[in-house]
Amino acid sequence: MKERVAGRDSQSSADQVADNGLLHRRALVSKGLAVAGLVGAGLGPNSTGAAAEQLVEPPWGLQVGEDTPPYQTPSKFAKNIVRSLANPKFEPRSSLSRTPHHLLEGTRTPNGLHFTINHTGIPQIDPGQHRFLIHGLVKRPLIFTVDALLRYPMISRAAFVECGGNSAPLFSPTPIQADVQALHGLSSCAEWTGVPLPLLLEECGIDPRAKWFIAEGADGPHLMRSVPLAKGLDDAMIALYQNGEPLMPGNGFPMRLLLPGYEGNMNVKFLRRIKLVTGPAMSFWESQVYTEPMPRGKSYNFDFLNEVKSFITRPSPGRDLKQPGFYEISGIAYSGKGKITKVMVSADGGKSWGEAGLQEPVPSKAFTRFRMPWRWDGRPVILQSRAWDDHGSFQPTRAEFVAARGQLDTAPSVLAFKNHHCNVITSWAVDGHGKVTHAYA
Amino acid sequence: MKERVAGRDSQSSADQVADNGLLHRRALVSKGLAVAGLVGAGLGPNSTGAAAEQLVEPPWGLQVGEDTPPYQTPSKFAKNIVRSLANPKFEPRSSLSRTPHHLLEGTRTPNGLHFTINHTGIPQIDPGQHRFLIHGLVKRPLIFTVDALLRYPMISRAAFVECGGNSAPLFSPTPIQADVQALHGLSSCAEWTGVPLPLLLEECGIDPRAKWFIAEGADGPHLMRSVPLAKGLDDAMIALYQNGEPLMPGNGFPMRLLLPGYEGNMNVKFLRRIKLVTGPAMSFWESQVYTEPMPRGKSYNFDFLNEVKSFITRPSPGRDLKQPGFYEISGIAYSGKGKITKVMVSADGGKSWGEAGLQEPVPSKAFTRFRMPWRWDGRPVILQSRAWDDHGSFQPTRAEFVAARGQLDTAPSVLAFKNHHCNVITSWAVDGHGKVTHAYA
Repeated sequence: MKERVAGRDSQSSADQVADNGLLHRRALVSKGLAVAGLVGAGLGPNSTGAAAEQLVEPPWGLQVGEDTPPYQTPSKFAKNIVRSLANPKFEPRSSLSRTPHHLLEGTRTPNGLHFTINHTGIPQIDPGQHRFLIHGLVKRPLIFTVDALLRYPMISRAAFVECGGNSAPLFSPTPIQADVQALHGLSSCAEWTGVPLPLLLEECGIDPRAKWFIAEGADGPHLMRSVPLAKGLDDAMIALYQNGEPLMPGNGFPMRLLLPGYEGNMNVKFLRRIKLVTGPAMSFWESQVYTEPMPRGKSYNFDFLNEVKSFITRPSPGRDLKQPGFYEISGIAYSGKGKITKVMVSADGGKSWGEAGLQEPVPSKAFTRFRMPWRWDGRPVILQSRAWDDHGSFQPTRAEFVAARGQLDTAPSVLAFKNHHCNVITSWAVDGHGKVTHAYA
Repeated sequence: MKERVAGRDSQSSADQVADNGLLHRRALVSKGLAVAGLVGAGLGPNSTGAAAEQLVEPPWGLQVGEDTPPYQTPSKFAKNIVRSLANPKFEPRSSLSRTPHHLLEGTRTPNGLHFTINHTGIPQIDPGQHRFLIHGLVKRPLIFTVDALLRYPMISRAAFVECGGNSAPLFSPTPIQADVQALHGLSSCAEWTGVPLPLLLEECGIDPRAKWFIAEGADGPHLMRSVPLAKGLDDAMIALYQNGEPLMPGNGFPMRLLLPGYEGNMNVKFLRRIKLVTGPAMSFWESQVYTEPMPRGKSYNFDFLNEVKSFITRPSPGRDLKQPGFYEISGIAYSGKGKITKVMVSADGGKSWGEAGLQEPVPSKAFTRFRMPWRWDGRPVILQSRAWDDHGSFQPTRAEFVAARGQLDTAPSVLAFKNHHCNVITSWAVDGHGKVTHAYA
C-alpha cells in the first residue's frame, strides 16, 4: 500500500493548492485514492471467483432480520450518534442538547439530532387545544388554531437555527479540549415549512405605530423576546413542519417563530402570542442574557444576527486519522446574512489557503457543506476553515475577535452564559499519530 | 364569518385561473383569508388586553415539561403520523411500510417515515464488519470498508426513491377506496450523501467488455439486480447518509446503491457486492417481478425509470374539508428523468386547469412541492394534478394509460405484485360535506 500511495503522490502534487497536502477541489476524481483494500495480488478480470470468495458470508445474511416499526430509528450500531445532554439528570434548570456534527454529513440535521434548549422541560402540547394570538397594535386581533393555519398558503425553506451562545467556549483564553459537538453543537439546520408571518400580520392589519413585536411561548417560562417588526415583515415564518413532519417536541411543537439568521432564542418555540408594540419589551432574555459585554465596560444590546461561521467536522476531535494518505476534509459553513460564497481551508495554521468545494445548491441562511481533498503526509498539521458570505462578511481570526470583543478567564459555565456570537476560525491540531485536538493558531 | 367570506369572493374572482375556485398562485398574499377567528367583535388596537384574556392559560404553561432525550422523536400527539405496515405481524414474507404523505409537508421525507420494503426482515449489520466488493470485469477488484469509504470525496443530493409497484392500486378498473398513503406511500425523498460510484469504478479499472453490473445486498435474500454500467457511470452513488445521519436500518444501513430516478428495488440496500459483467443476470427481481405485462400478451422488461408523477396530499382522503372557504391545495411532483417544470391543477375533473406554484429550488429527480390557493364554494368537485418534466414528459390520463398498459380485474394483492410504473393522474372527489374520496375522472 505504501508504495502505491507514494507512487501517486507525484501525480497529485500538480493538484496541490496550499501547503501540507491540500488539493484542488476537483482533483483526483478520476485518480486512484489507494484507500480501499486490493483483493489479493495481481487478481484480474479472470479471477473474479477468487475475489468473491474473500467476502465472508456474514451472520446477518443467513438469518431473518428485525421487524419493521411504524416509525424507524437509527441502527443499534449507531447508538453513539446522539445529542449530548448538558443537564442529563434533568435538574430544575435549562436543558441543552447538542448536535453531533462530527458524526453527520450532508446539509441538514435530522430531526432526532437537532439541538434543543428548553428552560422548564419540554411542554407536551395538545395541538387541538393550542391557540396562537396576534394582537396589540393591529386593526383586527386574530386567534389561529393549528387547523386554521393549515389552510393558509405555505412556504418551505432551509434555515439554520443557532443559539447565540454557540461556540462560546472559544472565548476562553486557552483552547478548551472538547469536540465539535461540545464547541459548536448548538447549531442545526432543517427544512422548515409554515405560513409566512407577513401574510398573517397583514390579515390582522398593522397599526402604523407598531415598530416591534413581542413573541411569547406557551412553555413554562413563557419565553418572551422582542423582534423588530421589519424582520417580521421580511422572511419570518410560523413554522409547523420540520424536515417534512410536524415540529419535534423540543423544537416547538406544534408551532414556532422562525427568524432565519437571528439567534436561536428569538425563534420562539411553542408560539402562543405575537403582540405588536412601539418598542422592545426589555425582557429578561434580551436585556440580561443576550446583551454582550465588551472591553472597557461597554455592552452590545439587540445583537440579533448570527454572523458568518464555519468549522471542519471531519477530521475533528474524536475523528482521528488512522494512517497517512488521502482524506476528504468536510465541514459546515453558514451565515445569518445570506449565502456562503467561499470557504478557504488551511493545513498549516493559516499560512497558506486553498478554496474548498461548496455543495450545490447553496441556500441562504442555511448550512452549506464544504469539502476539500487532502493528502496527509503523517506530520503534525493545523487544520482551519474560513468562510465568506454574499454580504462581504468573513470570519475573524481569533486575535482580531479578541481585540474587538475581549476574552474571559472565568469558569466555563460563566462563559456559556454571558458570551455570545463568537464566530472565530476554529483550529484542529493533528499530531504525528493522527490524533486531533482543539488548538488556537 | 359567512358574510366576510362572501364579501371577499368578489375581490378574489379576478384572481381565478380555473373553474370551481382555483386561484392564481400568487393571489391573496396580502388579502384576508377569513380563516382565523376574530377576537371579539370590533376589537381594535385599544383593546389588546381583552384580546389576550381570551387566551386561556393552558396546563402545559403551568408545569414542568418532559425530559430531553439523546435522540428526539415526535410528540405523543403526533402518534397517528406513522408508516402503515402491510405485514404488521411480521409473517415470513415481505414487509412493506408506507409514507403518510397526507400528514406531511415540504419536500423531504423525514427518516422515521421513509418507506421501506424488506424481504427477510431488516438485517442488523455491524458497520465495522461489513465489506463492499467491486469485482468482475475490472482490472483491480477492491474491497471497501465503511471507514475506507468515509475517506473518499463525497457528494450530497436530494433524490426520491420509489418502488416500481407504487401506485399499483390505480390499475384497478374501479377506484380502490384508500388514502394517499395506501395509494402512493411507497415513494419517499431524502438528501443522500455518499461516494460517487464512477469514482470507485474508475479506481478498480473498468474492462471494456463490461456493459452491466450486478448489485447484491447483504440481507437474507441477497437481493440482486442488474444495472446498465452507463447508469453506474452517470449519477449513481454509494450512499452512507440519509438526511444527514447514517442510513436508517430499513433503508440499507450501513450503505446502499442509489440510482436516482430508477425503481426502488434497483437501489440495492445493505450493498455488499458490485460485479461488472457483459450482460444482465436475469435475476428473479428483473425477470419475474419487474417485468410488466402488457395488453395482447406482450411484456416490458428492463423498464427502470420512474416516470413523471404527481398527487395532491392536502386535501386528500382523511384530510376532509370542514367548511367552505379558502384552502391551499398542496402536493408532491417528481420525475425520474429530471426536474419538474410545471404542475397543473384542476377542480372540475380536468375540464379547466390552473398552474400551481412550485417550491424553489426545484431539484432533479427529487420531490417538488406544488401549492395552489383555492376557494371552495361548498359544492362537489373533483381535484386533480398533472405534472410535466424537463424532458417533455407528462402524466397520462387514466384512459390514455389503460389504452397503453391495460388494467386488471383481479384481486388487489395481485395488482401490487404484477403491475408497476403506474403514473396516471390521481383524482380526489370532494362531496358537498367536504368528505374526500378516491375517484376516477
